[in-house]
This record gives sequence, C-alpha cells and structure tokens, in this order.
Amino acid sequence: MASDLQQPEVEQEVSPYGDLTVDVPALTALLDGKYADIRATVREGLVEYRSVLDDAETMSREDFCERVKQVVVDLAATGQTGMGFPEEYGGGGDIGASIAAFETLGFGDLSVLVKVGVQFGLFGGAILQLGTKRHHDAYLAGLVKGEIMGCFAMTETGHGSNVQALGTTATYDPDTDEFVVHTPTPAATKDYIGNAACHAEVAVVFAQLVVGGESRGVHALVVPIRADGAVLPGVTITDDGLKMGLNGVDNGRISFDDVRVPRDALLDRFAKVTEDGDYYSDIENANRRFFTMLGTLVQGRVCVGAAGISASKVALAIAVEYALRRRQFEATAPDEEQLLLDYGQHQRRLFIPLARTYGLHFAQEVLAAELHGVFSGDTDDETTRRLLESRAAGTKALATWHATRTIQECREACGGAGYLSVNRFAALKADTDVFTTFEGDNHVLLQLVAKGLLTDYASDFSDLDQLGMVRFVAGLAVETVLERTYAHKLMERIKDVFGSDTWDADAGLLDPDYHLAMFRFREEHRIAGVARRLKRGVDSGMNPGEVFSRVQDHVIAAARAHVERLVLEAFVDKVRAQPDGPAKDVLNLLCDLHALSSIEADRGWFMEHGRLTSARSKAISREVNALCRQVRPVAGDLVRAFGVPREMLRAEELLTWE
Amino acid sequence: MASDLQQPEVEQEVSPYGDLTVDVPALTALLDGKYADIRATVREGLVEYRSVLDDAETMSREDFCERVKQVVVDLAATGQTGMGFPEEYGGGGDIGASIAAFETLGFGDLSVLVKVGVQFGLFGGAILQLGTKRHHDAYLAGLVKGEIMGCFAMTETGHGSNVQALGTTATYDPDTDEFVVHTPTPAATKDYIGNAACHAEVAVVFAQLVVGGESRGVHALVVPIRADGAVLPGVTITDDGLKMGLNGVDNGRISFDDVRVPRDALLDRFAKVTEDGDYYSDIENANRRFFTMLGTLVQGRVCVGAAGISASKVALAIAVEYALRRRQFEATAPDEEQLLLDYGQHQRRLFIPLARTYGLHFAQEVLAAELHGVFSGDTDDETTRRLLESRAAGTKALATWHATRTIQECREACGGAGYLSVNRFAALKADTDVFTTFEGDNHVLLQLVAKGLLTDYASDFSDLDQLGMVRFVAGLAVETVLERTYAHKLMERIKDVFGSDTWDADAGLLDPDYHLAMFRFREEHRIAGVARRLKRGVDSGMNPGEVFSRVQDHVIAAARAHVERLVLEAFVDKVRAQPDGPAKDVLNLLCDLHALSSIEADRGWFMEHGRLTSARSKAISREVNALCRQVRPVAGDLVRAFGVPREMLRAEELLTWE
Repeated sequence: MASDLQQPEVEQEVSPYGDLTVDVPALTALLDGKYADIRATVREGLVEYRSVLDDAETMSREDFCERVKQVVVDLAATGQTGMGFPEEYGGGGDIGASIAAFETLGFGDLSVLVKVGVQFGLFGGAILQLGTKRHHDAYLAGLVKGEIMGCFAMTETGHGSNVQALGTTATYDPDTDEFVVHTPTPAATKDYIGNAACHAEVAVVFAQLVVGGESRGVHALVVPIRADGAVLPGVTITDDGLKMGLNGVDNGRISFDDVRVPRDALLDRFAKVTEDGDYYSDIENANRRFFTMLGTLVQGRVCVGAAGISASKVALAIAVEYALRRRQFEATAPDEEQLLLDYGQHQRRLFIPLARTYGLHFAQEVLAAELHGVFSGDTDDETTRRLLESRAAGTKALATWHATRTIQECREACGGAGYLSVNRFAALKADTDVFTTFEGDNHVLLQLVAKGLLTDYASDFSDLDQLGMVRFVAGLAVETVLERTYAHKLMERIKDVFGSDTWDADAGLLDPDYHLAMFRFREEHRIAGVARRLKRGVDSGMNPGEVFSRVQDHVIAAARAHVERLVLEAFVDKVRAQPDGPAKDVLNLLCDLHALSSIEADRGWFMEHGRLTSARSKAISREVNALCRQVRPVAGDLVRAFGVPREMLRAEELLTWE
Repeated sequence: MASDLQQPEVEQEVSPYGDLTVDVPALTALLDGKYADIRATVREGLVEYRSVLDDAETMSREDFCERVKQVVVDLAATGQTGMGFPEEYGGGGDIGASIAAFETLGFGDLSVLVKVGVQFGLFGGAILQLGTKRHHDAYLAGLVKGEIMGCFAMTETGHGSNVQALGTTATYDPDTDEFVVHTPTPAATKDYIGNAACHAEVAVVFAQLVVGGESRGVHALVVPIRADGAVLPGVTITDDGLKMGLNGVDNGRISFDDVRVPRDALLDRFAKVTEDGDYYSDIENANRRFFTMLGTLVQGRVCVGAAGISASKVALAIAVEYALRRRQFEATAPDEEQLLLDYGQHQRRLFIPLARTYGLHFAQEVLAAELHGVFSGDTDDETTRRLLESRAAGTKALATWHATRTIQECREACGGAGYLSVNRFAALKADTDVFTTFEGDNHVLLQLVAKGLLTDYASDFSDLDQLGMVRFVAGLAVETVLERTYAHKLMERIKDVFGSDTWDADAGLLDPDYHLAMFRFREEHRIAGVARRLKRGVDSGMNPGEVFSRVQDHVIAAARAHVERLVLEAFVDKVRAQPDGPAKDVLNLLCDLHALSSIEADRGWFMEHGRLTSARSKAISREVNALCRQVRPVAGDLVRAFGVPREMLRAEELLTWE
C-alpha cells in the first residue's frame, strides 16, 4: 500500500472554511466577552480552592457541607459572588457580571456553585427583588458578605411546578399586627430547600397570604428559622438526606407551627398590608401579580442554564483530550493503533455536542445581556420582561438537557476510565442531574414558552394558566393566533428573501440563511399546528384539560422549535459580527455543524412537512460527517478555548496514562 | 361544563385490544417463564438482604466492600449463584437457571450483582470454560461456595476493547517448567479488575503467551495473587479508588514483576504447552483461537444485558407508581389537580420505554435459551455459536443503552423527589452507568455484530479483524455480500408475503407483519449500504482504515437495525404464542406500541428510503399517542407484573407522601 494513502483523508478535502487554525487565547477572549475580568477572578478562585473537588469524595456529608459553606463565605469576601447587588450594600452593581461569574464558577465543584446560587441568587435575589428598602437595609449587606445565611422556601413536598397551589399559609392577625406562618398538612412542608438543613438563619417563605379572612394568593415573607445555630420554636427542620449529587448543599424540609412574624416581614414590593389590616397592590389580578413577582426571580433560571453549559464544557474538554491520547485498534497504519478521535463515530458523538455547546454559549450570552438590560432598567417594559422570561425558561431547558446528554456521551466515550470518580464524570453527572428539574421542570418551562408564543406575550394574557390558555386559543381563529406569533412575522421576511416555496430546494447546504429559514419554518408550523389542534379539540366538545393533555407533546415541541431558533440566531449573529479571519472561519464551521446536525436530528419532521427531500436529507447526513472531519484537526484547541482551568479537569488518569 | 365531558377521553376510544385487564400474578408468571422457582428464591434473598441498599449509602467504602462480600458468600451458600456450574462441583448444572437468577438479582443492589458476576461469571466462567479437569478439580468446588475468591484480569490500563493487543506477557521458561508473568509497561497494568483491590486470592490473567521465543497470542493463566489476605511477592495491587457507582466492588490494578507459576497454570482447553516446551492447539489460526476462547465467555455479556433490563424495570416501577399518586396543576377537573400519568407527554416518556422493556425482556429470554442450548451441548455447532455471540453482543448493547436512558427519563419524571438517594434513582444511575462500556463497549460490540452480518458468520471469517473485514467485503461484489446476509433471506420471504413494493402503503398500522417487514427492510438496506460504501471506498484507493472510520456510523446503524429486528421478532413470537385472552391482548398492545414508536423514532430514515409517506408517518405518531392512552389504565399493573419486590423500590418518599 502506497504510503500517501495513509494520510488522513481529511487533509485532502477542500475546506470552504479556509485554512483552519485556532488562536486559543483569542478564542477564549471572544467567548469570555465583556466580562473577561470577573471570569479571570473566578478562575483564580477555582484553582485556589481546587481541593474542594477531592473533599467532595473524601469527606463525610456533614463535613463537606461545612467545607462548602466556608468556601462560599471565603468567595463572598472577594466580591465575586455579590456582583449583582447594589454597590451601596457592598455588591458590584452589575447583573451581567454576576451571571458571568456564576457561569465560570460552573467549571468547579457544583455544590459550591449551587450554594452560591441559593444564598445570593435565590435568597438574596428574593430580598432584593421582592423586598423594599426596609428589607434591603436589614439583610443585603450581611447576606452579600455571607454573614447572614438564608434559604428560599418555595417548593413543598406536594407542590413543585404548580407554585400557585402551595399549602403554607401566612395569616394576618390584626390584634398583634403579625403574620402567622403555618404548615397545615404534611404535603405543605417546605422541601428540598437548599441551606435549610444546617446553615440558614432566615428563610424567604412563600405562602398563601390570608388577610381579613380572604386569600390573596402566594406571597413571600422573611421568617427567622435559626438563632445562634439553634432552630427557633415552632419551626421544625429535617434533613432531606443523601442526594444523588450536590451533597455539599444542606437541603432540608421546614414546617411551621403557627410561627409569628411582624407585619413588615412581608416582602412588599408588589403588595402591602396596612396597619389596619388592609391589603392592596398595584396589580389587581391575583394571577398576574403572582407571575409578576415570580418574573423578578428569572435570574435563577438564567444561572442554571449557564451552569449546564459550563458543565458540558468540562465534560467535552476531558473527553476530547482523552480521545487525542487514547489509541485502540490498528486502522490507518500498521503497528500503530488509531486515536479514538480519528474514528468517524467518535467524531460525531463529540463534535455535534461541541458545536451545540458553542451555540448555547452565544445564546446564553444574548440572554444574559437581555437580563442585564431589563434589570439595570435600560430596557424594562412589560413585553421585554415577558420575552426575557420566556427566553430564560427555554434556554434553561435546552441547556440543562444538553448538559445531561453531553456529560453522558462524554463519559461513555472515555470507557472505564470515565467511570472512576477521579476523572470528574461521576461528580458532573450526579451534580448536574437535578438541573433539568429544579428552578422549573424543563417540560413545564417549555409549556410556559409555548403559552407566550400562542398569546404573543401580550400582558393581557400573562395571567392565564394552562387551561385559560387552551380556552383563549380555542376562542380565536387559527389565523389570528398565527398572525399574533412572532414566528409569523419572521416567516414573512423569509418569503421575501427566498421567494415562494423553492427556497429550501435550491439553497446551499452551508448557507446560514437556509438554516435559519428551516428553523423558522419549523417554529411557525409547529405553533400553528398546536393552535389548530387545541381549537379542534375544544370545538369538538372535549374537556380543555384533556385537549391539553393530548396536544402536550406538540406544545412542547413547538416551544422547543422556538428556542432552537433563538439559539441558532444567536450563533449566526455572532459569526456574522466577527471580522474576517481564522476565528470567524472556525465559528462558521461550528455553526454549520450545529445547524445541519440539528436539521438531521429532526429530518423526519422536515420531510413530513415537505421541507426536505429524501435526497437532500441524505446529503445533509453526509455533510455532517464531512464537517466533523473538518473539526477534527482543531478539536483540541476548541475545547481548550473554553478556558476550563486545567486543575478542574483533574483527569490525570485519563490524560497522562500513556 | 357538562360532567360527562370530564370523563377521561381514553374510555371513549374503541380499543382493538378488547377490554384490557391485567392479571398481575399471571403476567408475572408469564415473564418469569420456566425459571420461576429460582427467581422466587432470588427474590426472597433480595428481601432478606434488603438492608444492603441502605448500607450502600451509609457505610464507608471499605466497610461496604466487606458487607457486599459477605452477602455474596451468604448467597452462594443458598446455591442461587452457582446454578451454572456442574453438579459434581456443587453447582446447579443449569445455565438457563443461572441467567434467570442473575437477572432477578438485578432488582437489588448492583454491587452485589456485579460482585456475583465477577466471582461466578467471569472468574468461575473462565476456569470452567478455558480450563480443563485439573483446573476444575482445583477451583470449582471452592469458588462455587465462595471460599476461593478470584478475579478476571483481562483489561489493562492501555487496552480495553482491543484485547488482542494486551501487553502482559507469560513467557515459558523450560528450565523450570514455569511461566513467567510480567507487566512490561505501566499501560500493561491490569486495571478496573473487580475483586482485585481486596478479596481475590487468585487471578485469571490474560497475557501474551511466549513459548520458545515465539508469541502465540493472548491466553489465560491462573495466578495466585494473595495468600492469607497478603499480596504475594512480585504482585503489586492498588485500588482504583472511588467510582461513580458499584462502590461495593473492590476494583483494582494489578501488575506483575516476573511472577512465576507452574506450567499447568495455563488454562489449556484450547492450547497446551508440553513439558518439552512445545506449543500446540487444535485451532491453528491465532486470531481464530483467540476468538474461540473469548466466545466461551459470552455468558458475561448475556448477564450484563439482563441486569440492564432489570434495572429498567425497577426505574419504571418507581416512576409509574409515582405518576399514579402525584398530582400537579388542575386540568380535567376543577379543584382537583391532575395525576401526572394523565398527561400525554408523561405517558409518552414512560410507556414507550415500558413497552420496549417488555420487548427486551422477551428478546433476552430467547438469548438465554440459545445460550443454554449451546452450553448444555444441545445445539453446539460453529455457526450457532457465532450467532449466539452476535446476538449476545447486540442485545447487551441495546439493553444497556436502554437502561441508561430509561433510568434517566424516570428520574426526571419524578422531579426533585427522584433526586433523593432514598428513592433509588441515584444508585440505579450510578451503578448501571458502566454497563454500556464494560463487558465490551457498546459501539465495539455492534461492530462485532456488523462483522458477522457482512460475512454471514462463516467460520472462515471469524478470524478477521476490522480491517480484514473491510478488505474482505471490498473484495466481493455487493450482490454477493447481500446474498450472504441473513436479512436477505428474510427479505425474500417478505416479498412472498406482501408482493412487490406496495406492502407498506396498504398494511394496517397495527399489523405485526407490517412492523416486521419495516424492520427487516431497514436491516437489509442498512447492511447493503454498508457493503456498498466499504467497497466504494476501498475501490477508490482509500486506506481501508480510513474507509472504516468514515463508514463507521453506518456500520453501527446496520448492526443496531439487525438487533432491533431480533427484539421485535422475539416480541411478536411471544405474543403469537399466547392463547387468546387478556394477557395476549395487553402484550399485543405493548408490542404494537414498541414497534410503532421504534418506527416513529427512525421515521426520517424510512422516509429517506421510500418506505414511509409523510402522511403515514404522521399517522404513526398519532397512533403512538393513542396507544399510550390505551396503556394508561393498565400501566400500574404492567409495572407490578415485573415482580420487583416492594422492598427494592424503597421509594417510600415517592410513594407514600400523600
């Protein structure tokens, strides 16, 4: 056999992306964006506290919880965990920086991350967003320093997704000018509450507010639960016990037996109770008031999605580096086994999630910028808030499912070595697993996205529950629903660009406008399909709940199609914004791979709906393989550009055995 | 709203399956099959030793390893772990029963299961299958009782999948009539070896046999590694450390520094070394000898697949029982939240894997029966062995991937409750995770299946490695490859049944012959596609290794299509074999759901290849939803029929909170 045949075939293919090279520091800088400084600070902290990765495996659960608490308090002293709070209370006054810091913290131990999220995001966020100056003055400076530890007591044993149905009550007693906080049934016990089992002195408790015998819906109150480490009278706290992961976070159950707090314990930014026992709020509709309060806590979802993306980066970095060292079976050369990364299937299993991780990174960057805009007051109107909440919900769902799948694939790609705890997949899998269901179950979040799409985020409809949404949609002509959709407006633009129906048959496979047109078509068609099905079901006399149940898979698919389009748009926009050069070339390649592999994964749907011929569908699969071969020479640099500190990989076993 | 509209719509649909009812004990008996007695014994043991599930979470790793060892020894005394060994050595003399026992043990703690697998399946199996009477007399009676603990030292740090490239050497020294076992490089260290870190006194070591200066390929020898608990001179053992799961199994690394063992340490059923230092074997070709030896160890793969199916059953039992109790959001009725299991998406996420689990159960039953036939000598010829090895490899891959996905989906379907260790998903996830890559990496196993398909299991080709296979296929006309495939013969039969090309357009969606025809078409077409691509690549002058790499995703897809067909056939055969009645009706429903959801999942491929119109594809998705609604009323009984002891669910938190 002639030796020239043994050259990797990839080098003989003509690349439309130019001569691919990656300047790793430059690409890292591009990914880090405007918050490079705070990210650098967080990276330094990760390295300094790297022993916490070992502690997670060697310490008892109790000791590890204490260790994690101490790390969180230490980090708080550096300022990196308080970036989102006002400067007057010792914070950084920069929401965007706080998201970037949290995202970067996601490279390290995730108990530390989640404890930070609980203390500063959930507890601190609730005080900041739902409270008024009185509460800020009382708590913010202390909690930003980690001196006052708190928890966010929303979820109950019986209710997680349906927060409006919480059972805990807070009843106003005009005789003493107090609220009486009470857990009426075991199902109303606060459950899975981070920081509750050991550390929190204060809880933000979500409860049905009862004033003058009238229930006003769910509101939040500050309730002390410990003093000097001892649980206060009337409060019962139990430990949730060992969890699949995140065992450095002390999750627990809290129940209240007629615990009294003063009237000003109510976090009263959106609703007040007067001394005379009168309840008033600027938002009259109870549903809408509730969703407005919840909406201010959107940052939590933004953070969880960010953490999922960071965990995916760690997993990919380990698996790609491993596949660049590990050889198995002779293939292209005699007497030398082939690198795993030179196998076509191995390229597919790693590079498709790699490309998607880049896409999600840029989508997350857009989301974080929108969050910053809204919460810094730059772009704060009702519709923008609704769009932000929807984008946060959808991105969180996609990013966390992506993390679960990517980490699993990377583990399997490292074989037995990937099963050893030292190589981090054990922790990555166990710790991230709950991301898909906490801060909103992913399916429920996508239903929220769909509701927005079907009602065009109009504030008039923001108070609709699922059934209200079904009835609303059923009451409209399908055309009206479609005209109200954002996707519809985009579709009009697409028709202008491509003209009639031939756009998908003639476009080049690597044309981003083709990709975008496919994603937008799917989105609009999915939404229209849901509207039609809901209407048809209700018109036929079926119970709206049953209609919803039957159409639920379409509802979720429509929302997913919407978020997929947002992700692709963010990716394409980012590529287009780059100056010509190597960085643009390689991002272009990744964007094409992400778009085409996404279309390939859903090619059944595109063919069903006449947007893909079988010949073109097969061509896309071939192209995905070809793009993976293009990625191969730069794959190592692409994972290195994530900037995961080497100490966080900790995968000496995988990376140095040869 | 009229109250009759609030009846679950499902009751108004006309079912083609008759009035569905499940006699749970009868269905359990049907699933248990001919080995109901041994399964009952194992179930009793699981309940008796149920505390081991708690011990896994509360004990130190060291203590838990000792605890698991003791449980294994205790179980050995009952005879349930030795069913596969000859009666003369204290075994049960029944391979089929041993598989059934192992499968049932998979409902419990999986460290116990894997320790049993290591001791009796791998170590015991190697002595039994690769050794001769001398070895049997020396070890079998002791190991069956758990008095002699052993390990199976095949995998090395540098080689897992490519066992032929192991680095450990066993060099015959004629002067002393001994073998010298040696670890020449760090990469040649035995690694991930269960029972090695603490308990094994003896190792079956796979090493390159060197006799008279000539390397004879990989052979197995019995090497003592401990005496009275102390590691023997020349042997170095280190602990693999904490793992993602299975921490009751003491995995470790072993290296040998010129360790001497007598000549009769060679397990010499297939190759002998004489006193004079002559090597001989009845199987002349070294590759073929190696694969023949490995082939005798097929039982390990059969067992891992079985365990994956059992773990899936546990997960489904928990998630379905939870969804029958947990309510969230008002939907069909006012003032009452809806059961999770009444949501359409929830039905999809649980019932599709439920149906597949039934299918895999029956496919596993066929596999176990074939194993029993071959190893009891009833049906032992070369081709039958090759078919068995292929079926075992393929079933293991599908069953273990199914376990990983099903457990994940079930965990997410239980939300935060599913994240608590008490509810078993933590252990199920962590312990089963390695199933997809141990006892053969799933991708490598499917490549083995594909090799068999492309060479029709002819014994002449059993000695081919991957590249040999590529060259062989490239040397044939594509038609020849196709004519040699088993699928091709089936295809001929399908054409007889359905006539020409119209079969798929007219058949009823619930016709099992339609389902089988679709699966068989896919299999044949996939195999033909691989053959064509391999041939085209080599004919174009490309390096065969590069050709393989590029076609690898098609190779794996072809193998998967083959195994999917085997699973469906086993399912359909089982249904058809039942007498008319409720059990047949409900299995028929599950079989239809499994078949149609499988076609739905791969509908892109079927449309690409002209076997599915877009209208029919959409009809299949609608039918899948309708079938899920049919399953809904009997779903609880269907998971109860698995016969998972209630104590193994241990999910009090999930199942009793209301």
